[in-house]
Parts: sequence; structure tokens; C-alpha cells
Amino acid sequence: MNYAMIIRILGWMLIFEAGFMAPSALVAAVYREGSVIWLFASMAACLIVGLLMKVLSRPKHHRIYAREGAVICAMVWFLYSIFGALPFRLSGYIPNMIDAIFETASGFTTTGASILADVEVLPHWLIFWRSFTHWIGGMGILVFVMAIIPLASGGSTMYLMKAESPGPSVKKMVPKTSQTAGLLYKMYFFLTVLQLLILILGRMPVFDAFCITFGTAGTGGFGILNSSCADYTIFQQVVITIFMILFGTNFSVFYLIMTGHIKEVPKVSEAMTYYGIIGAAIALISINIHGSYTNIGLAIKDAAFQVGSIITTTGYSTTDFDLWPAFSKWILILLMFIGACAGSTGGGMKVSRIQVAVKAILKELDSAIHPNDVRKIRYDGKVLEHSVLRGINVFITAYFLVLGLSVLLISVDNFGLETNFSAVAATLNNIGPGLAGVGPTSNYGGYGPFATCVLIFDMIAGRLEILPVLVLLSPHTWGEGHVLRKVRTDRRAKGQEDEWMI
Amino acid sequence: MNYAMIIRILGWMLIFEAGFMAPSALVAAVYREGSVIWLFASMAACLIVGLLMKVLSRPKHHRIYAREGAVICAMVWFLYSIFGALPFRLSGYIPNMIDAIFETASGFTTTGASILADVEVLPHWLIFWRSFTHWIGGMGILVFVMAIIPLASGGSTMYLMKAESPGPSVKKMVPKTSQTAGLLYKMYFFLTVLQLLILILGRMPVFDAFCITFGTAGTGGFGILNSSCADYTIFQQVVITIFMILFGTNFSVFYLIMTGHIKEVPKVSEAMTYYGIIGAAIALISINIHGSYTNIGLAIKDAAFQVGSIITTTGYSTTDFDLWPAFSKWILILLMFIGACAGSTGGGMKVSRIQVAVKAILKELDSAIHPNDVRKIRYDGKVLEHSVLRGINVFITAYFLVLGLSVLLISVDNFGLETNFSAVAATLNNIGPGLAGVGPTSNYGGYGPFATCVLIFDMIAGRLEILPVLVLLSPHTWGEGHVLRKVRTDRRAKGQEDEWMI
Repeated sequence: MNYAMIIRILGWMLIFEAGFMAPSALVAAVYREGSVIWLFASMAACLIVGLLMKVLSRPKHHRIYAREGAVICAMVWFLYSIFGALPFRLSGYIPNMIDAIFETASGFTTTGASILADVEVLPHWLIFWRSFTHWIGGMGILVFVMAIIPLASGGSTMYLMKAESPGPSVKKMVPKTSQTAGLLYKMYFFLTVLQLLILILGRMPVFDAFCITFGTAGTGGFGILNSSCADYTIFQQVVITIFMILFGTNFSVFYLIMTGHIKEVPKVSEAMTYYGIIGAAIALISINIHGSYTNIGLAIKDAAFQVGSIITTTGYSTTDFDLWPAFSKWILILLMFIGACAGSTGGGMKVSRIQVAVKAILKELDSAIHPNDVRKIRYDGKVLEHSVLRGINVFITAYFLVLGLSVLLISVDNFGLETNFSAVAATLNNIGPGLAGVGPTSNYGGYGPFATCVLIFDMIAGRLEILPVLVLLSPHTWGEGHVLRKVRTDRRAKGQEDEWMI
Repeated sequence: MNYAMIIRILGWMLIFEAGFMAPSALVAAVYREGSVIWLFASMAACLIVGLLMKVLSRPKHHRIYAREGAVICAMVWFLYSIFGALPFRLSGYIPNMIDAIFETASGFTTTGASILADVEVLPHWLIFWRSFTHWIGGMGILVFVMAIIPLASGGSTMYLMKAESPGPSVKKMVPKTSQTAGLLYKMYFFLTVLQLLILILGRMPVFDAFCITFGTAGTGGFGILNSSCADYTIFQQVVITIFMILFGTNFSVFYLIMTGHIKEVPKVSEAMTYYGIIGAAIALISINIHGSYTNIGLAIKDAAFQVGSIITTTGYSTTDFDLWPAFSKWILILLMFIGACAGSTGGGMKVSRIQVAVKAILKELDSAIHPNDVRKIRYDGKVLEHSVLRGINVFITAYFLVLGLSVLLISVDNFGLETNFSAVAATLNNIGPGLAGVGPTSNYGGYGPFATCVLIFDMIAGRLEILPVLVLLSPHTWGEGHVLRKVRTDRRAKGQEDEWMI
């Protein structure tokens, strides 16, 4: 394990975090808020620690492999959450450090779960920082940095990106990783600006428009009002609904549109299935809840907003869906688990994984009926590789294992089953609000420090799709007893694995 | 599809069901209960319909393949539930036919979920029939019949047994299927008699001892008192606890003991893991609940009884665990999903499947750390075949799919989330009592006909481990568009698949 390189890269990342805090200072300048001094203190802390890590680490060589890639990726998210929590803690608006880390991890992982009972008392610069973490986290911290400067001058950064990118497998749109990252960010940036402009034209206050757009783009869901999005106009709510669904779409759809291949869009089966699920869920819920509305149009609007918010794992709300009938509530829970498309900013298990899992079941059924037929699973016209299928299966079991154990661990605080289960479902899937005690009108402030740590772990595990975080916990990653094997692996790997220079 | 053969075999099975009802008539004779007339009416119905099916079906040939095997197996359970419900319906003790089918399906699938608010008003012969269905269902209806008469004079009955046997793969203990079935039944019979004798020696009334033993042996859980097992003596409760755990053990352990290979028992890793999980769960729950007991021994006794009852999916109770703290309740829910050993009478996902799934995760982690190491998953010293692993993965995803959809369907009755979720978990895993509205002191009578049908489906799907029931629903099974392909498959299959003569 190349510890020195890991420390050096993490040092670099901390220096960047100081940079990410800078825009909030501008907000403080506009609103003339003196408490911004704590933001500067936090930036200084990031810079000093980052520089020390960079200067003091003396790597013997610059090679990093899959193992280091996974470790760096997982640790960056914990590190960013800890240092990003400083503005909350130092300013005193969140007096407990673990709660502050929860709030920040919730921001970076685009979960949107909050421990704050009253958001509106925070100064503008702090609300801005809170929402801005969504926007940074949406596309992935490492991908963000790679998009800004192609650090990988000599090799490729696929190992880092692989660990961080949502979805079963990274599809490179263009041959070079840094180019793919850059392309993704261009689309991300374009859609962000578009939503911002439409909201401002739709008479949303500029500050609100910025924060709400960050939360939509990253599929995060931190609101700036205690009522989330319920007090915005119908036009604004509809715009947010549309953009939530867009940001949950597989970005290759936008790539096809950008490059003039609009005819190929219907062939992206994940996006089509995703739109189909959204349509069906809106229809079923509208029928189920329309009795409590005077106007079917309003019922559809609320159903669409909540469905879009939950399947994309954003977590905004325009109504207290905890009061909906059991049927509609369970649809929302199913959507929580399905999640958005791979290759989007959304969380959850991802539509394509569900598609492949269903295909695997149908294939198994078929071979139970015709045992001598051998067939392959196809996805979007291509035969699915065995390793991808295995990865999906392992993901699904690991996912339910983490879910089951997390609920057990947080139940030491003795909340009800619905609260505990939905708290884990909402953090592991990076949604935000759950049901009952953590429903849209409540918050996560009731959990003790131990349960809060478990939920922080779940948010980061969910964002990184579990495996990289489990690598952190595996003794094989750190063990010294594996040196011999490591050497053997390294030797075999030579020439096949990429180096990364910094 | 050889429809005529399917009808003929199902006819045979109905004739057997009439036979299974006979012992209840003896009970009625002992207690001089006149209502037994409805039992005779039900037996007559089984006989007449069964004989008609047998006589009127004219199969052109006697060959049946995997497809027919799965269809027969799934249909037998529905048929047995429908005809087995007649005594309840005709006698008027369960006036609603769907409720009566639920009760019977719950018996045969060894679920033990009841729609009856008051069991104690039933006549003895009906209670006996209700409990006896557990004993028949425990080892599998088809296996039972095969054990009595080796129908398969020419070929093997592996196709039928494969669809019905619990666990990832049927291990033949001895070369011939009918011999394996016979051997399993000898052990099953021996343990049943042993428990019966110990309970009677422990001063349990003989009638109670019979019914409770049937429920334990089949891991069913129908009680004969409204208080389930709470009113039995501590000695009796401890005996039941031990036998529940024994009947949830992989029967190959008993085979090893029977044949004098006691030293090899610790190598049956599934059984050892199963005992380990039980021990850990008892310890954790005892610590969690001991505050509400005057005596730690009683806390351990109750913890052990409930843990044994839930992990083996029996469903007896000695206390209202719905009142336990959230931590203990969630442990019980995890145990519901884990279930007993493969090759036992218990339900759930099975310990060996969880073991293999965890091994698959660890392997994937390892190959994330050392991408060039190729390793195989081993289980009990043998390399696991790819098809077994795939089957387990498909089972797990299909399982959660059925779970999610079932909760959605039954939530039309608008009960709470905890009720709906635990109702499906408790029926799909063949446990019996759930939590909240279907907790140990409540019953399933509140659900409407549609939701009740969904839960009947879940019980049978859970008992047959999902795939055979999905085969019933698959259009490929019935479709005529597949004739060509079928012929091709049949031709290829010749000589490789077994024929079954009747």
C-alpha cells in the first residue's frame, strides 16, 4: 500500500476544499454577514492541514493501484465531510461536531437529510455552503477535481473514477477519462444554468434559485425554507419537478442529443424504463390521493413532485407524504430503492441494475422450463459480461446486508421500526427525508452520536455504492500478512494497470 | 406440455389428501364430535374429484420434464390448500372460503399464520387436521407421497423433488431419490415420536402434545390455545425450544450421527453457523430485555424460545415480542429473513444461502483490492459451481421483488406500514405471526379477500422458494408459440432427462 501517495493526494483534495468554500464568502459579502469569519477559519484549517499532508508525505514512487484508488476515494468523502463541517461547528449553528459532520456528509453525498429543526435561522453564507456541497457532491468530488485540471498527465484516472461513479459500470463516452469527466461537467453546468435562469424568470428570489438549483442538480434536497418547496409557486414547483427528473436521467441521453443523435435516444433502455416507472407511479398515486384534493391537477402536480423527488433521491417535498395512504407511501419506498439512472447524479440501486436483475430472473425461469437452452442476458443489444452481472448481484446482496445491519445498530436508540427502517433507507439511498420520526416535517436530530455515525457511514456507503467503503473496512486492505501476495499481484499487474502521477 | 399427465398426477395427489384426512376422524371418535360429518364430506369431495381426474385424463405418453415437474409441484400446493380448506368451510367454523384457504395454505406451507381470533372454539378433530397439515407440509407433500410408495418405478423423481425441496440444491444422501426421501422421513418420524414422548412424560395433555409436536416438526406454529405456548410449563417450553432448533437443523447432521460419523458433524458449516447465529441472537436479546424480568433465567428462556421459533420460522410464542424494544424486534426480523438450514423443514432464505452470499461479497472485495487474483468460492471444502451461485443470486433478487410487490398489493387495505411489511415477511418466510396488526396477539382476519389471496400466494411461493410458482405465472410455460422450440428442446433432452411413469 502506497500510504505516502494516499496522504499526498488527500492533502491536495483538502486544498481544493478550501477553494470550494470561497463562493460562500461572496454571499456573505453581499449580505454583509460578519459570522463569515468562521468560514475563513475553516478555509485556513483546510489549507494548513492540506499543505502539511502534501509537504510531509514523501512517496518513494507514484504508482497507485485499484486498492489505493478505492481507499482514496472512500477517504476523500469522510475527509470532506469532517472539514466541511467546520463552518457549522465553529459558527456555533450546529454545536455538536458529529451532528455537523452528519449535515455535511448529507450535503456532499447529496442525501439532504438534516439534523436542523429550523433552517431559516442560518446566515445566508452558511445556507449557501450547505447547498453548494450538493452541487459539488452531485458529480463526485474526485470527478469534479479531475474535470477542472487533468491531474493525470501521464496515465488515466479510471481507478479513481471507477470507485466513485454511480452505476454498474463506467461507460466512457470518449476514450480519455478526463475528457469524459469534462464532458459530463459541461452538461451538468449547462443544465444548472438553465434551471437557474428559468427559476429566476419565474420570479424566484435569486438566492433561493441558486440554492434550490444546487439541490436539484446534485439530487440533494437541502431546502432553504423549513417548508422545503411547499411555499413556492406552482410554476416553480413544476420547473423543479422537470429538472429533478432530468438530473436523474442517464447523462448519455444528453450526450446523444448534444451530438445530434436524437434518434438513438429511445434505444437507451434505462432512461425509457425510468420514465415509464415515473409515469406509472404518478398515475397510481394520483388515483390513490385525488380524494383529498379539490382539483385533480393539483393532485397530479403533488404526485409528480414527490415521485420525481424520491426516485431521483433528491428529497424535496411540497406536501407531507407521511400522511398519504399506505399504498402511495409504499410506492414511494419502492422508488427509494429503485433510484435514478446510472450515469446520473441520483442515488439508489439504479434502474439499470433492477432491469438486469429482472432479466436474470426471467432467464433463470426460462432455463427451469427449458433446461437445455443456453441463453445470454442482453442489455441494450449487447451481451452482458459475466463480471458485470456478478458485480450487480454482489451489490444487491451487500446492499441489503448493510441495510439490515444498519437498522439493527441504530435501533439502540429505541425509535419505532418505521422510523429506523426509513432512516436507513433514506440515507443509504441518499434521499433525505424518511417516514414517521424522520418524515418530511421532522429531522434526524433525535438520534444519538452512535446512531448518527452509522447513518453518516450509510450516506457515504450509498453514494459510493458500498464496495469502496467496505474495502476501507476490510483487513485485507491494510493487512501486512498479504505483502507476498501483493507483490505477486503487483508483478502480474505490471503493464495492465495504470500509473498516476501527481 | 403433457397436460393429461399433469391432471392424472394431481388426481392421484387428491386421492392421497383424502387419506391424510383420515386420522382426524379417529380424533373425532375419541372426543365423540358429531361435526366430523363435514370431514367425511370433504374426504368424499377429494376422492370423487381425484378419481375423476385420474380416470378422465388419457395421457398419450408418460414423459414429464422439468417444466411439467415445476407446474405439478406448484399446483399441488394450491390444490391441497383449496381441498384441505373444505373441513373449515363446510363445518362453518370459517365461513369465508378464501379465509379457509388461507388457514389451510398456512398449515401446509408450515407458516402458522391464522385468521382465527379464537382457536379454542374449534372441535378437536378440526384442530387436529389444522396441526396435521403442518406435519405433512413440513417435509413436502410430494416427498411425503414418494416416501410412502416409490411411484417412480422406472425412472427418478428428481424433477419433482427438486422443485419442492428447501435449500439451494438437493443433495442426495444416497443414490436413489426415493431412498433419500425415505431416509429423510425416517429421521423426521423418529424426532417427532421422541418429542411427543418427552412432552407427554413432561405432563402435557396427549392431544396438546400431538398438535404441538406436529407444529414443531413441520416448523409450522399453529397453536391450540389462544395464548400459543405461553401457558405451558417452563419444562415444556424448553423442550419445544430444543426441538424447534433441531427441526431447523440441516438433516444431514442427523444422517451423519445415524451412520456413526459424529466426528464429521462440525464440518457441516451451515449447521454450525446456524447454531452460532442462534447463540448470538439469544445473548443480545437477553441483555436487551432482562430489565423487564425479575430473573435473568426467565429472560434467557423467553429469548431462546422466540429466537428458536422465529429463525426456524415456526412461529410459536411465549410472550408478546411486539412489545420488546426496537433492537430485539429488529433482530427477530433479521432472523425471519435468514431462516433455518437448507435440508430442514424450516423456511426463510436459509443459512447456507446467506453464507454463500457473504462469501461472494468477500470475494468481490478481494478482487477489488487485488484485481488480478482469480479465486473460486468454496463451500464445505468444495468449489461452488457457477450455476448454484447464480441460482442463489437470482433467488435473492426474486425474493425481494416478490416482497416489494406483495407489500404494495396488500397495502390497498390501508393498514400501517409495519403491519403490511411484517405480514408479507411473515408469510413469505413461512413464519406466522408478524408485528403490530398481525403481531402474536393479533391475527390476519383483518385483510380483505384480495390481500388474503396475495398472502396465500406468498406462503406457497415462500415454501417452494419462489421459482416454481413463478413458472406457473410465466407465459412461456403455457404459450403455444413455443412449440417449435419445445420440440427442439425435447429432442435435445432425450436421454438426459428422466421419464416418470405412473
